[in-house]
Parts: sequence; C-alpha cells; structure tokens
Amino acid sequence: MKQIHVGMVGYKFMGKAHSHAYRDIPMFFPNTIQPVMQAVCGRDADGVSKAAKQFGWNEYVTDWKELVQREDIDLIDINAPSDMHKEITLAAAKAGKHLFCEKPLALSLKDSREMLEAAEAAGVKHMVGFNYRFAPAVQLARKLIQEGRLGQIYHFRGWFLQDWILDPDFPLVWRLQKDVAGSGSHGDLGAHTIDLAHYLIGDIEEVVGMSETFIKERPLPGSMSGLSAKGSQSNEKGEVTVDDATMFLARFENGALGSFEATRFAAGHRCTNSFEINGSKGSVKFDFERMNELQVYFTDDAEDVQGFRRILATDPAHAYAEAWWPPGHTIGFEHTFIHETVELLQAIEEDRQPVPNFADGVKCQQVLEAVELSITERRWVQTKEL
Amino acid sequence: MKQIHVGMVGYKFMGKAHSHAYRDIPMFFPNTIQPVMQAVCGRDADGVSKAAKQFGWNEYVTDWKELVQREDIDLIDINAPSDMHKEITLAAAKAGKHLFCEKPLALSLKDSREMLEAAEAAGVKHMVGFNYRFAPAVQLARKLIQEGRLGQIYHFRGWFLQDWILDPDFPLVWRLQKDVAGSGSHGDLGAHTIDLAHYLIGDIEEVVGMSETFIKERPLPGSMSGLSAKGSQSNEKGEVTVDDATMFLARFENGALGSFEATRFAAGHRCTNSFEINGSKGSVKFDFERMNELQVYFTDDAEDVQGFRRILATDPAHAYAEAWWPPGHTIGFEHTFIHETVELLQAIEEDRQPVPNFADGVKCQQVLEAVELSITERRWVQTKEL
Amino acid sequence: MKQIHVGMVGYKFMGKAHSHAYRDIPMFFPNTIQPVMQAVCGRDADGVSKAAKQFGWNEYVTDWKELVQREDIDLIDINAPSDMHKEITLAAAKAGKHLFCEKPLALSLKDSREMLEAAEAAGVKHMVGFNYRFAPAVQLARKLIQEGRLGQIYHFRGWFLQDWILDPDFPLVWRLQKDVAGSGSHGDLGAHTIDLAHYLIGDIEEVVGMSETFIKERPLPGSMSGLSAKGSQSNEKGEVTVDDATMFLARFENGALGSFEATRFAAGHRCTNSFEINGSKGSVKFDFERMNELQVYFTDDAEDVQGFRRILATDPAHAYAEAWWPPGHTIGFEHTFIHETVELLQAIEEDRQPVPNFADGVKCQQVLEAVELSITERRWVQTKEL
Amino acid sequence: MKQIHVGMVGYKFMGKAHSHAYRDIPMFFPNTIQPVMQAVCGRDADGVSKAAKQFGWNEYVTDWKELVQREDIDLIDINAPSDMHKEITLAAAKAGKHLFCEKPLALSLKDSREMLEAAEAAGVKHMVGFNYRFAPAVQLARKLIQEGRLGQIYHFRGWFLQDWILDPDFPLVWRLQKDVAGSGSHGDLGAHTIDLAHYLIGDIEEVVGMSETFIKERPLPGSMSGLSAKGSQSNEKGEVTVDDATMFLARFENGALGSFEATRFAAGHRCTNSFEINGSKGSVKFDFERMNELQVYFTDDAEDVQGFRRILATDPAHAYAEAWWPPGHTIGFEHTFIHETVELLQAIEEDRQPVPNFADGVKCQQVLEAVELSITERRWVQTKEL
Repeated sequence: MKQIHVGMVGYKFMGKAHSHAYRDIPMFFPNTIQPVMQAVCGRDADGVSKAAKQFGWNEYVTDWKELVQREDIDLIDINAPSDMHKEITLAAAKAGKHLFCEKPLALSLKDSREMLEAAEAAGVKHMVGFNYRFAPAVQLARKLIQEGRLGQIYHFRGWFLQDWILDPDFPLVWRLQKDVAGSGSHGDLGAHTIDLAHYLIGDIEEVVGMSETFIKERPLPGSMSGLSAKGSQSNEKGEVTVDDATMFLARFENGALGSFEATRFAAGHRCTNSFEINGSKGSVKFDFERMNELQVYFTDDAEDVQGFRRILATDPAHAYAEAWWPPGHTIGFEHTFIHETVELLQAIEEDRQPVPNFADGVKCQQVLEAVELSITERRWVQTKEL
Repeated sequence: MKQIHVGMVGYKFMGKAHSHAYRDIPMFFPNTIQPVMQAVCGRDADGVSKAAKQFGWNEYVTDWKELVQREDIDLIDINAPSDMHKEITLAAAKAGKHLFCEKPLALSLKDSREMLEAAEAAGVKHMVGFNYRFAPAVQLARKLIQEGRLGQIYHFRGWFLQDWILDPDFPLVWRLQKDVAGSGSHGDLGAHTIDLAHYLIGDIEEVVGMSETFIKERPLPGSMSGLSAKGSQSNEKGEVTVDDATMFLARFENGALGSFEATRFAAGHRCTNSFEINGSKGSVKFDFERMNELQVYFTDDAEDVQGFRRILATDPAHAYAEAWWPPGHTIGFEHTFIHETVELLQAIEEDRQPVPNFADGVKCQQVLEAVELSITERRWVQTKEL
Repeated sequence: MKQIHVGMVGYKFMGKAHSHAYRDIPMFFPNTIQPVMQAVCGRDADGVSKAAKQFGWNEYVTDWKELVQREDIDLIDINAPSDMHKEITLAAAKAGKHLFCEKPLALSLKDSREMLEAAEAAGVKHMVGFNYRFAPAVQLARKLIQEGRLGQIYHFRGWFLQDWILDPDFPLVWRLQKDVAGSGSHGDLGAHTIDLAHYLIGDIEEVVGMSETFIKERPLPGSMSGLSAKGSQSNEKGEVTVDDATMFLARFENGALGSFEATRFAAGHRCTNSFEINGSKGSVKFDFERMNELQVYFTDDAEDVQGFRRILATDPAHAYAEAWWPPGHTIGFEHTFIHETVELLQAIEEDRQPVPNFADGVKCQQVLEAVELSITERRWVQTKEL
Repeated sequence: MKQIHVGMVGYKFMGKAHSHAYRDIPMFFPNTIQPVMQAVCGRDADGVSKAAKQFGWNEYVTDWKELVQREDIDLIDINAPSDMHKEITLAAAKAGKHLFCEKPLALSLKDSREMLEAAEAAGVKHMVGFNYRFAPAVQLARKLIQEGRLGQIYHFRGWFLQDWILDPDFPLVWRLQKDVAGSGSHGDLGAHTIDLAHYLIGDIEEVVGMSETFIKERPLPGSMSGLSAKGSQSNEKGEVTVDDATMFLARFENGALGSFEATRFAAGHRCTNSFEINGSKGSVKFDFERMNELQVYFTDDAEDVQGFRRILATDPAHAYAEAWWPPGHTIGFEHTFIHETVELLQAIEEDRQPVPNFADGVKCQQVLEAVELSITERRWVQTKEL
C-alpha cells in the first residue's frame, strides 16, 4: 500500500492533535493510504526534539525551508502560528508537496487567496483544518440536510462560547495579538462556526456585525505556549489588539437567516461550539461539549410523540462509527482530527481534492473579513464585495 | 347542569390542592358536572374558618360526623391525616355520600379493604387520590403502552426521591410517626410509585424489600402543620418510627421486572417522582420535576435517528391539553388535582366508578404491606399472601 | 380590606389568562388588595356572555366605552386586539381608571407614548403585561444580577422560538396581519425578549436587524379566534404582511452585547422563550419550556466542581414560592399572570407605579421600531433617534 | 527509562482497546514506564497476524503457553474469553510475569481466588480491568467522597443498561452462553457497577436479587466475534443460558443502601453505565453515555442557588485532564483504558499493587455469586457466606 510521508511544521496544541491522528490511523483506519511520521519542524530545537520523541516522529528539524524541499516528504502539515501559514504554504506548494494547513488559512483574505492559487497552480492536494466538520454528529446533521430530511432551511444559529480569558489577569498571549493571530474570538472560534454554516447551509450573501474587546489591557506573559501562558508574568501590561467577542447576522444565498457569535467571555462555557438549524421539515441542535450527540426533530412524527430526539452518533449508521467502539461508547475531541486526516488521505488516494480544502478556507476568510469591514463601516456588507 | 355539593375534611397541603381543583374546574372544564364548595371541616375552628374564606368554601364546620350526615352534601372529600381516613369513610359511605379519599387509603390493608367494602355496599362512587396519574405526560406513557407502541414490557424502574428531612435537626413531624402516618417514605412516596406501576404495567406478583431509618431520633416539634414544622422546637428528642427510605424488587404478573425506591434522603431531589419503562418496541422516561415532559424511544425509528425524544405533553394530541394553553405553555403540580377531580366528576356524571378508585387504593396497600412483611421476614412475599 | 373592581376588555387567550389570575389570587395571595371580577367586555354578545360565565365575571357588557365610564369600576384590563389598545386606554385614563394593558402597548411608538402621557396625566396606575418577568426563575436571574453575583454583564443572548405557523397551509389569522397585529414575531415574541433584556440588563443604545417573511401568502381563514383558526378555510389566499422571523444585534448602554431572535419557524420549538446572560462572575440560562428552572454558573466555585447548576426555583428562597407548593412541585404558564397581577394590586395598595408599567411598554416599543427602522434603512439605529 | 514488554492474549474488542492504550501512552503519558508491544497471541493465525499488524505489535504468536514463558515478556495482558482467564493467569504467574486481566477475573469465585493466590504467591503485580473507574468524572466522584464533601453516604443506585440483544433474532453469541461467559448481563455489565460501588462506597454486606432471561432461545450464529455475530445465521436455535437482566438490593457495611440493575433489554440505552450517590452533604450522578460529565449537588450551597451542577471533568483540576486537551475538549471510551494502563505502569514503577487488582476482582466475583445464590435460594445472602 502506498504511503504518505509527512513533514509537519508546528508541534504545540494543534501539532499534538495532528500527530495523534497520524499515530492512530494505522490502527483504526488500516485500509486507507497510511501516513508516515517522517519529520516534525520547530524553531526551538529542544522543544521540537522532545515533541518528536513524544509524538512518534522519525526525526525533527528546525528549518522548515529545508523541510519543504525534501524529496522524502509528500505532505506538508502546517500548524505553526497563523502568521507563518502563507509563507510555508507557498514554498511547499512550489516544491510540489500536498498541503494540510490549520485554520485560519492566513491572516488575510488576500493571503489566503494567494495560497489557494499557489496550491492550484502546483496541482497538489490541499486541505484546511476545519476539524469540527468531522464529528459524527455533525456529519449526521449534514446528511439529514443533504437528503432533504429537514426540508427547506430557514434558520442557522451558531455560537462558539469559551471562557478561558475571562480573568482580567490572564496574560497577553499570542492569540490576543492581532499581528500574530489575525483576530481574536472571530478568527479563532467564529471561523469554525462560519465553516460549519458553509458546510451545512451554503454560501453567505451578506453580513452585519459587531465586536468588543472587554479587557483592553493585560499583563505581558513570561513565555507563550499553545493555549496557556507558562512562567512568571510581567508587571507590565500590553494592549489587547483582538476582539474578545464578535457577533454578526447573515443572510444565506438560499434565503436562510443566520446569527453568529464567538466569544471568550461566556462564563461556564469551556468549549461550547454549538449550532441549531431549523427547516420546514425539522431541526437539529449540536453542542460540542456533548459532541457525540445530535438533537433531531421531525415535523412528520406522529402528533403525540413529536419532540427533539437525542441521537448518540455512535451507531453503525453513523459516520466513522464502525472504526471505533460498539454503540454508546463515545469518542472525543481528538477523533475529529483523525477523521479529518482520513479524508485527506482518501482524497490523495482517490486523486481528488479533500473537503474542506483551501477554497473553503478562502470562503471562510472572505466572511471573516466581510464581518470586519461591516464592523468598521457599521453597515451591511456583501461577501462579494471582497 | 347537575351540581355536586362537596364537603371536605382537612384543609392543609392536600386540602388546599383539592380546593383549588374545585375552584378552577368551572373555568377550565365547564362542560362536566360542576362542583359546589359547600363546606370544609377541621377541628381547629380558627384555622378552618380562615381556610374556608381563603379557599372559597361556602361555610366551615368543625364536626365531620355532622358533615357526613348533611343532606346538602353529595361528596365527602377526605384529606385529613391518614389515621382518620377509615372512620370518616365508613360514616360517609353509610350516609350514602360519594367518596374522594387521599392516599394512603388507610393505615392498613385490612382497614382499606373495609373501606372498599363499605363503599361498594353503599353503592357510591369512590376515588383515591393518586394524582400523579393525571400528569398529561404520564397519561401519554399509559396511552403508548395500551396501544402496544412499546411492545412487551420488560422493565419498570420507579423511584420517588426527596430530601426535605435530610437535616438531622428537622423535627419529628406527624409524617415521621408510625401511628399517624402508617409508614414513612414507603407509604408517602412509594405508594405513588406503586400506583403508577399498577396503572402503567399491571399487577405485582411478588416483592422483596429493605428499608432504613437513617436518623433515629429527632427534636420534638413545637406544632405541626402540613409538610412543615412551625413554631419553636423542643430540646427534647423523640424516636422516628417510620422508614426514611424503602426499596424493593418486584416481579409483575406479566413477567416484567420492577425496582422501586422511595427516600427522603436524596440530596438535591426536591420531588423526583420518576420512572422508566423498557419494552420490546420502545421505552419511556418520566421525572415529575419536569412534569410536562415524557422521554420516548422507539426501536423502529430509522437507524440513523434513533434516540429518546423529549415530548412536551402540551400539544392538542395530549390529555387535557386543550383545556389549558397553547402548545409549549406548561402546567404545574396543582393541575394533576384538577384533572383527577375532573375524572371523578365525569365518573359521577357517567354513573361509573372513577379510576383510580378504592380498589386501586387497596391494591396499593397490599403491595405496601407485602413489602413490609418481606422486610420483617427477610424473604420474598407473594402479594396474594395478604 | 380594600377591593379593586375590574372591568376587562377582551376575553380570548389573554383574557382567559387574566381572568384566571383574578380568580386565583384570593386563594393564594389573600393578603393583598383583592380583585373583584366585575364586568367583562366583548363585541360578540354570545361569546362574551359565555366567557363571563365560564371565567367567573359578575356580568358581561358589549360596549367598552360605557364600561370605562362606570363608577363601580376601578381598573380597566385591556387585552383586546392590539389595534384597540390605544383608544381604550385613552378613554379609561380620562375616566380615571387604573390601567392594565397587554403587550404590545400599541401598534406604534407614537401611540404608546400618547398612552403613557395620558396615564400620567390622569394620575392612575398603569401596568403593561410582560408576564414572563414573573416566572420565579426569571426573578432569580434578576436578583443575582442586581446583587452583583454575576459581576459585570458582557453578553445577553435572547431568543423566542415557536413553530405554530410552520405549515404553509396555516391560515392568515389576525396575528399575521400588520394592520391588526402591528408586526409578526417581532412584536409578538421579540417584545417579550426585549422587555426581559431591559429588566435584566438595562437600556439598549443601538441596534441593527434583519427580518423575513418565509411564507408570503396563506389561505384566508374561516373565522379567527385567539391563536387558532377555527372553521373551514377559504380557497382564497391573502398576503402575509408581518415578519415570520426578526433578528437583531444590540449594544446596551452598560457596554454589554446583545443578540435577539424571534421566529415562528423553528420546528420543534413550541414556546422556547429563552435567554442566556454571561457576566464576569457567572452566567444564567433560562428556557420557558422548563420555566421552573434557572441554570446558574459561578466562576468562584471550587476549581473541581465548576459547572452550571440546575436550580428549581420552587424553594422558599425563590420569589412567590411560598404561595404555592412544597419545593420541587412546579408551577405553570398561568402563574406568571397571577404574579404579575399581584404586583399590580400591591402597587395600587402601596400607591406606587407597578413594574413593568407603560414606561416599560414605551421603551420596548422604541426598540421594536428602532429595529424596524434599522431593517428598512439597512443600518445601525440609535434608540434615541426615535 | 525502564520499559515493560507486554505479551497480550486476545485481540478482539478488549484487545483492541488495550492495544490502543499501549500505543498512545508514549505520546500522552511519556513520563511513566513505557510499554513495549512485544507480542500478541491468538489461536487463529490469520486473525492474530492481521491484528498484530493493525494494532502495532512487534510480533504475533498462537501459543499462549509459550508466550507466558518468554524471557522477553514482563507483563501478560489477558483479554481472551473469560473461560480462559484462570489457566493463563496461573501459568503466567508461575512464570513470574506481571498480570493484567480483563474482567470478569474468572467464571467463579473459587477460580478467581485461586488466581489471586497465585499472583500473590508469585509476588507479581496484578491488575483487573475495571476500566470505568478511570473516567475522570468517576475519579471526581471518588475524590468528593474521599474528601468527605458528600458527607455520610446513604444511597447508591447503579444501573448498566444496554439494548444490543433486544431483537429476538439476534444470534446466540458466546456472551449468551454460560459455559463461556459465566453469566450474562450480571457478569458482563453488573460486574462493572459492583466494582464502582466498591470503589466509591465500600464493601457490601448482604444482597438479594432477581434475574430473568426474556428470550430463551436464539438462532445459532454462523461465526462469533467480539460483540457482533458475523456471517450467516443458522436456522437452528439454541438455548440462552445466561441472564438477560439481573437486579439486586444491597446493604453496604457502612450502612448505605444500594440498588443494582444490569440489563441488555433497555431499549434506547446503548451503554448507560450510570450511578447516583446521595450523602448527607451532597449527591453525584454519572452516566457513561455522557462520560465527561458529573452532576454534583451540595447541601451547603446558598439557599437560592441549590441545584445539581453539570461538571465537565476536563479542567486542570480533574484527573488525567492535563494529559489531554484544553478544558471543554472531551475524551472518549478508549481513554479509560489508557488511564487504567497508566495506573498499572505507575504501580510497577513504584513497586506497589495497582488498583483495582485481583483482590478487587475477587471481591466483585464474591458479590456476583452472592447475588446468584440469593436468586437460586430466594433469600438474602451475606457476602461473607461465600
């Protein structure tokens, strides 16, 4: 069986999730093309060598420019900080490598379009890391909609609520700095909701939004790592340059109405990536904190037993379920990455573009920027303006 | 339209609930025989006169023996303390009055049988106050089972959990004294679960149980009233002579297995009167703390959308719903008494016995005592032994 | 004890709810001023006479103009169709009657302001029927916020979802006609959410909204009554002139962000009047379909036991609970009207304005119209513009 | 760092779960002794060779008797069918290997005691596979109880509900045959609940139980594998020799009351391994279908905010959480095996017995047999009788 040799740039939160996917695929999805964990790359030799050993990479390197040129590498997996996505992608595409880039694809729509063009020009496969699509419950929602079982869609309501920076003394990590992260909750969390809306409902025609930075200054961190801020904090404060919360209304091209909210200031919500969809024949509800469940309602149920059903998406009829455990034995966050990576591998095997790919990343970025423009200019913005 | 003139003995917790039912029936169920709140009876003239005025009774009296003889009374409603049920019932039956007796029918199976015989001999209508049958969600459960939509029943699981005497300093009210209350959680709470099991599943063949009094002594109360203990407590303690918790296993005559639990020591449960039933074609779950809801599962739902449905039993298809508000507008505890009373009035109108009647009260008492015998003799007991 | 003699105009859905409140108050709230159900008024003599008898009014009348002049009437309760609120109010105020007007106060901000002025000029008490404030769980949310237990408020998320006109063949009842109803989901449902936001968070500074009428034509109804459409439907169709769904974003004066949605096209939602509030110290969540519950989260809970608590607002510590049943015994939709009416009666007794009063009705109308203007002009609108 | 070389006997459902644990530990728990997947053993060379490759074992073998003698093996992991546990354990213990045996330890109490004695005599480490202890939410329940935060325990309610053999045409797989499986739902599911009760509450003094086989004959399967029955079914039927459901009451040595139920006939329950515990200071509730959550109630919460909290056991304060993902990012069924195996490896490293070990397996078996004796003799049985 053909193998795919992977070179990965980045090894923190997302790098760990991706590594685990490569590591577990041979066991749970043995019939697809198999990944080989060839080399992981990071600037800090100590850190990346430790990660390489722990995660199971054959080797570690510190220069991504070399890595993307290596002949023994088929796929470049990019989960370095967002401000590096573009440069690495362009170089890797040029070198003819398949591309697996974490979201957000880039810090700007312009950059992400350049990346898509480069990937297309190079004729390589390209995937963007919208992992939440790959929760089996989300796949079930998609299936019900695609099969017309919810009828015409009227409403999409999506919100991604977290509370990890609620404390004003939480330090100014890179995710709170616009030049590195691009945006705050909007690009970090909202991007996932936008992608789910694209996946489940379709394209967005116009948006109007608002956003806020509730805590405008925070202590400078000692050192930054992944989601947390290790080490001692400085007494000095710095300006938070991204949004703490962003909300917007949207009209979809198919006439559905949408509302979106992303915030890091929703006390009690650790990772409420949630949506509800209402159609003429039924509704679905999803909450990532109960990621194995989909709530489903059908208008044509018998009159005396109409109600939302709590579906545990672990039955043989559900996506990816047969690779795992018997019904009722749930899976977790990390499995979304495994399924996502399986899609990439299968796409390579079948010589087609994986879904979601860079075009989806661009489309998401387009909405993100349309919302930002709408906030700046305090008006409705057509996505096509951008 | 014919009217029923009611004389009620008792005016505390249950008296209030019954009074409210009589009071609201003309408004919400105007097409049945209408109750007239003729006279309420209590030993304490001050208390009962105040209650009469507040609840809307035409008059109050202090001598139930006179009341049951009055020609202007058609129905005697008995919600005095349990140790008085029998005497009042026998006198009222002898006087040819219809009977509406709160549960437990009596303090012993022997007494309750005597009451049933007296009622039958008198040829009057007799009802026992198992109000929880009359939650629309419970009625839906019954309907699904009766129509065969759950198939053959394999399991009944019923529990009634409260926590109001969890505090060891809660005083020794009458409900904790065997000579007045008959038993503790068993007769107070468990009786309701047993009745629901009879209503939903059928007769019980044999039982084996256990019980416990966790707090064996409590402060003597200053004065007793309804569920609460008002006034200053004594420093003296008295013995708790009833069970704090009683559990038992049961085999139903139709082959189903049952487990029952009643306790006043389940922290966090204010009024969890709950059951689950599993059949060959589906299941239902009920919790009185969400009394408008029934959870329903069907095995023949499509493979990818099998799950418990949360039915809000407020649609036109549900029992009593059309008397109330539009779908989704829920009702409360007191409505179970209204529905119960409507059943009584309709039965009188239709010249049939209401359901549940004294025979159901006897059957419940039979199981209660079978469980007690089983606990005393530490063995399985056939209900027919009693 | 002083009595308040009530004359009520209207006797359908809201008239029934109000009548029940007057009927039950003497039983459950005997220590306030007591209402006397003097006269109910409607145009259809047959209908209103039947209602008068069923609901317990002393008499019925068909001419509201006479009613508001009667010396034996202290309070005019207005729950006739919305397009009649203003005229009745002005006449009743002029006659010196206290006013209890269902929401929406009027069909326009201008009219509602006129009504407020008239009430103030007349020096009478005036209340507007935002009944959902009076669910004990909502009162608990208010209490927690007022006491600072949620800290600084960052987010308000409110939605009122129903599905009763999802069927395109549902007829064109008066609630779907702009000239009678003013607006659709926006004024009917959204008004409640706006009022709750005012009550819980404070004033709204600016809004931007969108709305849609999904089904633009519907069959003409045979006859109209309350929420339902009785009788045979016509083959003819008429235009739906109100919104099926309206959503908007809002910025509160205290800096909180808000999102609002009202729709009658959310399959599976019978009456999901729901909100969530996130503050610096905690969060609350409410859903009217489980109206006895409030979900509460506190950031200062011990680290290993942080989570949303499901509070059943039936304990003695909760508003109005002591008037009802023991903890865990829930109440229903109709109780919100009882509590609301108690507030009105207590205000009259204490010679103060009840809350919410016409000023709250005006403020709600102001936001409703600001949203409508925002939709028409496709821009953010300051509430102060109106 | 020291390594542990593992030889595993069995490679079906449990073998896969164990293999995955060995495979992922180096990545997520790099600081413990590391397992080496040396050899996997099965009777069917084709099957086991395929499994070895897929799961990542260095080699496969078909003779467990050779395997347990190999010098390059430190630990024998036994997840072959239950009727082989004893023989393999005795041989492996004699060879001085550490032991990791799936539950049930053996088909009889006598055998399991023999196994414990052999392990103790050999001076090796021994662990039994009660994996559900290792859900972080269960660990939290344990911690709360150990720290006295629930006070004195009054009630344990445990049930393990499944529905995978509800269909009468489901074939007679090995789990339905007493000679291979020992018992049905009792030993398969009930054993887990018993172990959780031991872990959380303490030792059981006496029991009384009942059980039933609802479907007494089933089609013979074509071939058997794990939980499912592959291949064509025979027209012939065979007798089901195990229980479909078993329930029992128990009294714990510390005075708590317990009720237990295991069934494979609870429609809608795929894997409801659930318990509730009530103490004098609080309560906890757990359901494995939402395995990341623990519901917790404390009696000393402020009066107006008392309610069950939904704790998501993914915060840094929770067991094993720091090895995984940020708060709110849930884990799944397989992680219980990883945690379990980490405990085994740490115990070996620290030269102590892991928990749960064979003594816990024996104690569980003792209760299982006490229940069976109680069913046969229809009486209460003291666990000490056995």
